[in-house]
Amino acid sequence: MGFQGVLPILPTPFTSEGAVDEYSMRKLIDFELQVGVHGVSILGFMGEAHKMAESERKLVVGAVVDQIGGAIPTWVGVRAFGSAGAIEQAREAQAQGADAVFVAPIGIQNDQALFNHYAAVADEVEIPVIIHDFPESFGTILSPELIARIANDIPGVQYIKLEELPVLDKLSRIRALANDDFGIFGGLGGEYFLEELQRGANGIMTGFAFPEVLVGIYNAFRDGDEERAAGIFDRYVPLIRYEFQPKIGLAYRKFVYHSRGIIADRFIRPPGRLIDAYTERELAGIIRRVGLSLDVEGVQVAEPWNR
Amino acid sequence: MGFQGVLPILPTPFTSEGAVDEYSMRKLIDFELQVGVHGVSILGFMGEAHKMAESERKLVVGAVVDQIGGAIPTWVGVRAFGSAGAIEQAREAQAQGADAVFVAPIGIQNDQALFNHYAAVADEVEIPVIIHDFPESFGTILSPELIARIANDIPGVQYIKLEELPVLDKLSRIRALANDDFGIFGGLGGEYFLEELQRGANGIMTGFAFPEVLVGIYNAFRDGDEERAAGIFDRYVPLIRYEFQPKIGLAYRKFVYHSRGIIADRFIRPPGRLIDAYTERELAGIIRRVGLSLDVEGVQVAEPWNR
Amino acid sequence: MGFQGVLPILPTPFTSEGAVDEYSMRKLIDFELQVGVHGVSILGFMGEAHKMAESERKLVVGAVVDQIGGAIPTWVGVRAFGSAGAIEQAREAQAQGADAVFVAPIGIQNDQALFNHYAAVADEVEIPVIIHDFPESFGTILSPELIARIANDIPGVQYIKLEELPVLDKLSRIRALANDDFGIFGGLGGEYFLEELQRGANGIMTGFAFPEVLVGIYNAFRDGDEERAAGIFDRYVPLIRYEFQPKIGLAYRKFVYHSRGIIADRFIRPPGRLIDAYTERELAGIIRRVGLSLDVEGVQVAEPWNR
Amino acid sequence: MGFQGVLPILPTPFTSEGAVDEYSMRKLIDFELQVGVHGVSILGFMGEAHKMAESERKLVVGAVVDQIGGAIPTWVGVRAFGSAGAIEQAREAQAQGADAVFVAPIGIQNDQALFNHYAAVADEVEIPVIIHDFPESFGTILSPELIARIANDIPGVQYIKLEELPVLDKLSRIRALANDDFGIFGGLGGEYFLEELQRGANGIMTGFAFPEVLVGIYNAFRDGDEERAAGIFDRYVPLIRYEFQPKIGLAYRKFVYHSRGIIADRFIRPPGRLIDAYTERELAGIIRRVGLSLDVEGVQVAEPWNR
Repeated sequence: MGFQGVLPILPTPFTSEGAVDEYSMRKLIDFELQVGVHGVSILGFMGEAHKMAESERKLVVGAVVDQIGGAIPTWVGVRAFGSAGAIEQAREAQAQGADAVFVAPIGIQNDQALFNHYAAVADEVEIPVIIHDFPESFGTILSPELIARIANDIPGVQYIKLEELPVLDKLSRIRALANDDFGIFGGLGGEYFLEELQRGANGIMTGFAFPEVLVGIYNAFRDGDEERAAGIFDRYVPLIRYEFQPKIGLAYRKFVYHSRGIIADRFIRPPGRLIDAYTERELAGIIRRVGLSLDVEGVQVAEPWNR
Repeated sequence: MGFQGVLPILPTPFTSEGAVDEYSMRKLIDFELQVGVHGVSILGFMGEAHKMAESERKLVVGAVVDQIGGAIPTWVGVRAFGSAGAIEQAREAQAQGADAVFVAPIGIQNDQALFNHYAAVADEVEIPVIIHDFPESFGTILSPELIARIANDIPGVQYIKLEELPVLDKLSRIRALANDDFGIFGGLGGEYFLEELQRGANGIMTGFAFPEVLVGIYNAFRDGDEERAAGIFDRYVPLIRYEFQPKIGLAYRKFVYHSRGIIADRFIRPPGRLIDAYTERELAGIIRRVGLSLDVEGVQVAEPWNR
Repeated sequence: MGFQGVLPILPTPFTSEGAVDEYSMRKLIDFELQVGVHGVSILGFMGEAHKMAESERKLVVGAVVDQIGGAIPTWVGVRAFGSAGAIEQAREAQAQGADAVFVAPIGIQNDQALFNHYAAVADEVEIPVIIHDFPESFGTILSPELIARIANDIPGVQYIKLEELPVLDKLSRIRALANDDFGIFGGLGGEYFLEELQRGANGIMTGFAFPEVLVGIYNAFRDGDEERAAGIFDRYVPLIRYEFQPKIGLAYRKFVYHSRGIIADRFIRPPGRLIDAYTERELAGIIRRVGLSLDVEGVQVAEPWNR
Repeated sequence: MGFQGVLPILPTPFTSEGAVDEYSMRKLIDFELQVGVHGVSILGFMGEAHKMAESERKLVVGAVVDQIGGAIPTWVGVRAFGSAGAIEQAREAQAQGADAVFVAPIGIQNDQALFNHYAAVADEVEIPVIIHDFPESFGTILSPELIARIANDIPGVQYIKLEELPVLDKLSRIRALANDDFGIFGGLGGEYFLEELQRGANGIMTGFAFPEVLVGIYNAFRDGDEERAAGIFDRYVPLIRYEFQPKIGLAYRKFVYHSRGIIADRFIRPPGRLIDAYTERELAGIIRRVGLSLDVEGVQVAEPWNR
């Protein structure tokens, strides 16, 4: 049985001048380990990978793999316009120790070309390939039929991160058409996480900045306590809903991670929207209302480089 | 002081063969009156106005105005590519007794042309004009600066239905730039209703099929009991969030109105997505979980034509 | 055998204040008759139909049908978001004497829904229905397979106006898949008219403001003199190419018709781009370079209402 | 005075298996030198740079710079989502001997962010930066005002490759707003080259596969013989127009370069449209009709590596 559970999409921390902040990245990893996530996903859209140089992406993968030390899997985002570039990035991630790559279908509009793209990448790496289905950002629509064909005919493609709205019916159709070992992960900030699990999702890859909530929902559901899972979901959904706003979600999340003392700065590389003081208070108010806290507690990283 | 409160966007009921169902439309109005909404909004995007013939739109406006009998205001959607068509529709609505028109900025990409479009319509009717700001459906982006200019320089344009994501910051900027009498209404299924009220919204126009919930939130907030408003919002937000899914929301809503015994059929004119039996149970389960009911009770229309 | 030849897409003339200019419309018809076109197409995208009120569209159809007096066919554009509106417009055109309607597939993204849309309209009128395939303006893509299915299975749909770029290969594929009686018309300003004819097109519907050039090419080709057709095409292609620029083509064309003394004013309803004095001279220079003239000659309409 | 003239956008030749074909790339350079172009532009959109790995792009730049041997300038395309990636690519091109970089504004929608992006790249290299304005491919619109501000306030940004349709009025507005040293190059297959020169363009960067025609037009115009320039343009415009078709242009061009014996194979990396035998004959027929030839003559490369 393959990977499952909560593999948060992590932001890439930058210093106040915009450089990659390796120390914060490592602290973020320690935090994720501490709250019990089942893996991490880095260099996705929310990780600002598309705004980073090749050399910076390598730095991040190296730091994350090292800091995790094999405790949980590391999934790395791959985003290139053609197969040659995607293969290059995927191989590099594999060479650095990534456990899987999630691959964006950028700029491809034809079913057979999409199939070939995933086949080409899967052929050139030994780690599993995850389809990243996110039409709003990538402009590419993958039908359930095509996804099932990719899943069933290309052994190396073993998962999907599913984010086409509306997502639930599509999830059920893929579940019905694809082989049983094909892993389906939700995204979309967790907004439909409960229903995704009920429809057979294997976990979630998303950037919600309180991953412990997602872990709680997932573990309860996995243990068969669906009512408890729903209870946790309903309690925190006012925050989940608020945080999942397009274009501005990253600013919310960096604010939360920063306020919790995990990352040193909230810098976002342009283009990227920031939030004002009113919005910070608004967000903090909702966090309090659902019973969470922005206080720094239990988030300590003694000597991250020496783990 | 102008209109405010909850003015639900109503679906247009059709028979199982797809004809306009005037009887169900009148029952729907009676239901809305019964739950205490502050007005109704008809022939919007969710009202499938763009799929209806001119003669059918007239039928709907006539029936609604008649059934309401002046008890609360009727707002009517106007959607045409150019000013000539918009004026024609707006005048017709006015002649039939509409209290205001909400006008879509279809196919106009230039600030001055947008200003002129709203000025042209407002010049030709005496009832207020509402800007319908909904880029995802109309493909037109209205900046806060342009909206404020329209609000401040065209006396007849007195409201906006605001639905550009992310919506909250935009609402605050319009509130800061426009005159104090300019009315701002939320939409987006009510997903951000609480925060919209806190930022100065005057009400909401949206299709959420339990308008009594929105009325409850609005009235509590208006009466100064913000904590109670937040409590109601948080209790029902699992449903609000679920119902507000793009492309499929109308099917949810017709299912609810039909299950509650208010409309006779769930027919949606093509193109429009339907929902399967699993999804119906899923939706019904969430409705139950938040403590609402699909039972028919208290929704009775004796002789709608003789009110 | 059905319609064929050159059926120009006509602009709608407006007065300098923006009202429909019926007199100029009638003069334009007389001009078209004089240069020997095989029919006219009115109220298309370039006819600004989407910016006109229902009552204005009726006025135009009535004037054109009357002025033509049955000499050549009149094709009328239909553009509505759903089948109900399209049927309403198509029936009205038929009632006013139109010989065919060309129907835009606005807002429909699903193959079966598109098929049903054309079937619904064709069922409700007796005159032929023309598919208007113009993704750049309508946002809808029709595959050759779908077009052939519509052509072969819906008797009333007998023509297509084909304008998806690149157009030539698509034309050949439709020609191969559809029944032999299905009429294919080019568009795109005539930019590929020669190759379209060589690939089996039956004519053209486009707004190029020297329709006599298109008639010349068409007639030479129809008479089997392909070399002469190519010679005419090559001589005038510097102008055809220049005139066919997106967004600004209508301004060129109204300038030409106005300069030739056919329409009284160049007014374009907003939103619409105008051209400056430099551009006018540039266009006039190209017209002269290819040996055409903007002088008023032979374009006289004595008593258009009394024909 | 800066660069000017014809700097063709070159395709990247691949072997029949899809690998970069360095030998053909060098032969292509020799051909370009032979016909007298004023420079070459590589790794643009038509160069399939977005489908190539980083290592392949380096190989191409190295081969081209070496083969040219300083005879004419080499301009290299840069396309990355954020400034970090663009700077990385631009620096690498500079290190390999590029004379300028043309930079795509991918994924940036905000004027100030666009300004900052170009400033950031220009700050980090010493060679000139060219704005690549091509909304259809990049999805980013740059207003004339913004372009002029970039041109006037960032010393390193010295040119623009202008391809927003309609292009002519925009060219004139930029010419009026920007400083006189700012170089404006046309593109769009040469379809408006004559008018661009008349409006003050400094040259052209485009992929038309008979660059000798563009050189002829440019040189005649530069030498003050505008009539001769127009004569050459009009003679070949039937081909220029035909070749400039969206999506399929690259297949035309590789067919021409291959038929002329310059590149060894016509392979296009997916996704990319190919042309069938009919289309090949059609294209060859137009080439013959305008008096050009696909015969191999005078295109000989003895020992490209030893120049």
